[in-house]
Amino acid sequence: MRKQKNLPVWKQKLGQLVESRWFTSSIIILIMINAIIVGMETYPNLYSEYTSFFWTTDKILLWIFTVEIALRLLAAPTIRDFFKNSWNWFDFIIVAAGHIFMGAHFVTVLRILRVLRVFRAISVIPSLRKLVDALVMTIPALGNIMLLMSIIFYIFAVIGTMLFQQVSPEYFGNLQLSLLTLFQVVTLESWASEVMRPIFHILPWSWIYFVAFVLVGTFVVFNLFIGVIVNNVDKADSAEDEVENTHEEVVELRKEVQELKQLIEKKLIDN
Amino acid sequence: MRKQKNLPVWKQKLGQLVESRWFTSSIIILIMINAIIVGMETYPNLYSEYTSFFWTTDKILLWIFTVEIALRLLAAPTIRDFFKNSWNWFDFIIVAAGHIFMGAHFVTVLRILRVLRVFRAISVIPSLRKLVDALVMTIPALGNIMLLMSIIFYIFAVIGTMLFQQVSPEYFGNLQLSLLTLFQVVTLESWASEVMRPIFHILPWSWIYFVAFVLVGTFVVFNLFIGVIVNNVDKADSAEDEVENTHEEVVELRKEVQELKQLIEKKLIDN
Amino acid sequence: MRKQKNLPVWKQKLGQLVESRWFTSSIIILIMINAIIVGMETYPNLYSEYTSFFWTTDKILLWIFTVEIALRLLAAPTIRDFFKNSWNWFDFIIVAAGHIFMGAHFVTVLRILRVLRVFRAISVIPSLRKLVDALVMTIPALGNIMLLMSIIFYIFAVIGTMLFQQVSPEYFGNLQLSLLTLFQVVTLESWASEVMRPIFHILPWSWIYFVAFVLVGTFVVFNLFIGVIVNNVDKADSAEDEVENTHEEVVELRKEVQELKQLIEKKLIDN
Amino acid sequence: MRKQKNLPVWKQKLGQLVESRWFTSSIIILIMINAIIVGMETYPNLYSEYTSFFWTTDKILLWIFTVEIALRLLAAPTIRDFFKNSWNWFDFIIVAAGHIFMGAHFVTVLRILRVLRVFRAISVIPSLRKLVDALVMTIPALGNIMLLMSIIFYIFAVIGTMLFQQVSPEYFGNLQLSLLTLFQVVTLESWASEVMRPIFHILPWSWIYFVAFVLVGTFVVFNLFIGVIVNNVDKADSAEDEVENTHEEVVELRKEVQELKQLIEKKLIDN
Repeated sequence: MRKQKNLPVWKQKLGQLVESRWFTSSIIILIMINAIIVGMETYPNLYSEYTSFFWTTDKILLWIFTVEIALRLLAAPTIRDFFKNSWNWFDFIIVAAGHIFMGAHFVTVLRILRVLRVFRAISVIPSLRKLVDALVMTIPALGNIMLLMSIIFYIFAVIGTMLFQQVSPEYFGNLQLSLLTLFQVVTLESWASEVMRPIFHILPWSWIYFVAFVLVGTFVVFNLFIGVIVNNVDKADSAEDEVENTHEEVVELRKEVQELKQLIEKKLIDN
Repeated sequence: MRKQKNLPVWKQKLGQLVESRWFTSSIIILIMINAIIVGMETYPNLYSEYTSFFWTTDKILLWIFTVEIALRLLAAPTIRDFFKNSWNWFDFIIVAAGHIFMGAHFVTVLRILRVLRVFRAISVIPSLRKLVDALVMTIPALGNIMLLMSIIFYIFAVIGTMLFQQVSPEYFGNLQLSLLTLFQVVTLESWASEVMRPIFHILPWSWIYFVAFVLVGTFVVFNLFIGVIVNNVDKADSAEDEVENTHEEVVELRKEVQELKQLIEKKLIDN
Repeated sequence: MRKQKNLPVWKQKLGQLVESRWFTSSIIILIMINAIIVGMETYPNLYSEYTSFFWTTDKILLWIFTVEIALRLLAAPTIRDFFKNSWNWFDFIIVAAGHIFMGAHFVTVLRILRVLRVFRAISVIPSLRKLVDALVMTIPALGNIMLLMSIIFYIFAVIGTMLFQQVSPEYFGNLQLSLLTLFQVVTLESWASEVMRPIFHILPWSWIYFVAFVLVGTFVVFNLFIGVIVNNVDKADSAEDEVENTHEEVVELRKEVQELKQLIEKKLIDN
Repeated sequence: MRKQKNLPVWKQKLGQLVESRWFTSSIIILIMINAIIVGMETYPNLYSEYTSFFWTTDKILLWIFTVEIALRLLAAPTIRDFFKNSWNWFDFIIVAAGHIFMGAHFVTVLRILRVLRVFRAISVIPSLRKLVDALVMTIPALGNIMLLMSIIFYIFAVIGTMLFQQVSPEYFGNLQLSLLTLFQVVTLESWASEVMRPIFHILPWSWIYFVAFVLVGTFVVFNLFIGVIVNNVDKADSAEDEVENTHEEVVELRKEVQELKQLIEKKLIDN
């Protein structure tokens, strides 16, 4: 933003336009219209009756969004500056994909893309963008605990498949099914009534496997959550640095008072 | 309260009466009687036998509450002062609605209104009123995360309806059903055993949708909870300001000691 | 304990005995034997074969515990001192009830009493006693939120009974059933799949009742938990007082330095 | 590590080799290959076709891991130093068990052992080792609350078996089944719909048992979690010590300033 003085006048003007209040508001309204339309399309009666209306509106909206992103791209000092922001990547891909799949026959893919366009509300509303940035930022700090979780999931899935493949093909038929089942178990959803009990009736020792996984799994998930909490509380703890500064300040102060004392004592002796 | 001296004497007297201990206690007792009566009415045998008794008692209670609120309204300096407090609005509406629907034929609406009158216990007991005020106060701070939650819910609901409308009409038959189902999934209630598994048997890729929603949904809900916690802890953290004050104080102190040193050094040279 | 010097010698001796390590250890071992026996009694084969053995052992244990409590009672300065401690009440009642129901025909009550004796392990092991004291201590601070919870439960139960009595007699047949169902709903157990869905099929607007209760109920329960956390964290926050003290100390210090400066400045003028 | 100078040269060299980057990386890659192989073995088609390939690879991997641990053992100053670290015990046992069961007929045990070898990823990756050490470290602090939990579980299991043995043999048939059922109840999984409701139909007072256990159980589990949180937050609270130090520093400083004042006042009188 500081470099704008070196920018050509039309880029400055465009930048002001693109960041103006009514421009953002219009885009938000258009996104809301887009959201309402994709919602209405889910009703088969409405859709079959007004298909051409929905498609026309959608084409118009796609072109408006294309123009919007083109304007924002032109307003940026360089193209690289524009793509430094990952939200701009998100906006660009969502709109570009709309054009690419336009003529395609994958109607479902195209419709999902149109729905995903509603996510642009997040990139357009600054407070939401900040919130999502903050939420996403907490993820990398949890890398280790997620790696640990993956190892535990994988080992339990392999053992589960080995042991219960024959007994419970629906839940432990192969490695992928076991992983999905373990995900269900870690959310504690019907882990006993649907998953464990039927196996337990045939293999009475199988409770060890499930109780062990529930204990280990929930303990690790819980610590993952704790990690997020402590992270958040730490960020809020600006007081800590202040305390440290105060401490240093007091130590410095004490040195000065000691020098002062020596000065006066020396003077007393001199006198 | 401070303006009471300028109030006419009868308003002062009424104010004292309305805020007196026995007045509040009597109202609480009447609310409890109201609560017991609405509870007893749910037993069909009791209700059919003593219908007239229940209706009479209810009419008496309604009129007593009407008088109570009228007194409180009269005791307030102006009518506007009375309606500044949202609890008074609540009391007023609950009682007024009782009169409005009195003659109506919506027996169920009338009976629910009578039950809601029990909520007045909150507005009458000061400690409960404070607690609810505190709970409600935490909600606006969560505005952004709730907006984000709504966007996520809406997008997943539209996609879910599009994809699973045919396969699982009970859970994803239309947009409203999908939203209700997603609310159920976010509470982790039977999300796998009842909602996902039947769809998963027909569309094996559907697990992506559910696992993605469970991960994103619980993560956002969890952060919503964290927000409330951090909010609460922050309020309790009066220590933080104190630390800042101490720091400033120490910096000021150090300046003074330095001035002092210069003073004495100067004197030493002078001597 | 400090008054022991004024106690007769035999009371002091008895006090030492009762608080000695091996005395406590023996009681713990006897409680464990009691625990094992009540566990073994649950196996019908074992019980029918060794009934008399179980009953004899139980009588012996009961008398040993009686003697133990009698000794502890005698060792206390006065009987009132003994009963000041609620754990002693607990021990006394558990053992006394064992004698009272001895001859009675309520075999189940008697057997449950014997099982409850295992709870004495908590009153005998000091670290466990402290832990339970701490846990119980957090409850009164939650009085208000529990009162609020009760009001919400009661109102929703009355409304639920009124609305769903005919449709779902199993869950909302009467006020007690509704309260139990709401307790189940607040733990999020099968609230949708078992409780709401069948009602929802008949009364499509019923989702409002359930979603409202799940939102309000879990929000209040969550705040109840937050209350416990904040309580615990507050206790751990000894740092807060320290910060306040430091602040006062620094303010005092600054005053003294200012006095010092005035002293020296005055001297400078005098010279 | 500091004693390495007194070690023979070959031990120092070996130590460097064993702690070198590429050595660790190679082991991690081999563990991943091991993980992929045990995963592939769960597919019956793949396994029956390539059985000999899987067994050969597994033997090779086992011997490489044996050599690796032998090298690490030789690199350690003494054998005792090596076994001081519990992670080394873990590595040693996993590999040794692989050799011991090699010839045995317990194919399942052997295969599970091979899967458990994947856990070695934790002992080899330092950041994961630290994380698991930290997680395990929080467990002993929870000893008391776990003991309390065990007592509560045991007492409720004995009472549950006594009361519901006849009515619900599937869930409360004997002491072990009751303990498993209570574990399920404490995770709130189908506690009402599957466990309580069928018993409740026959014994209408049985809700007391379940509601009591859900309240007590979740309260204790919740406090167990709180314990972990407070533990974690405490560790992060380095600020607390800093505050204490600052306080002492300020008190000392004030003493010095007072001495200074006395000095100057004395001088004033002297002059």
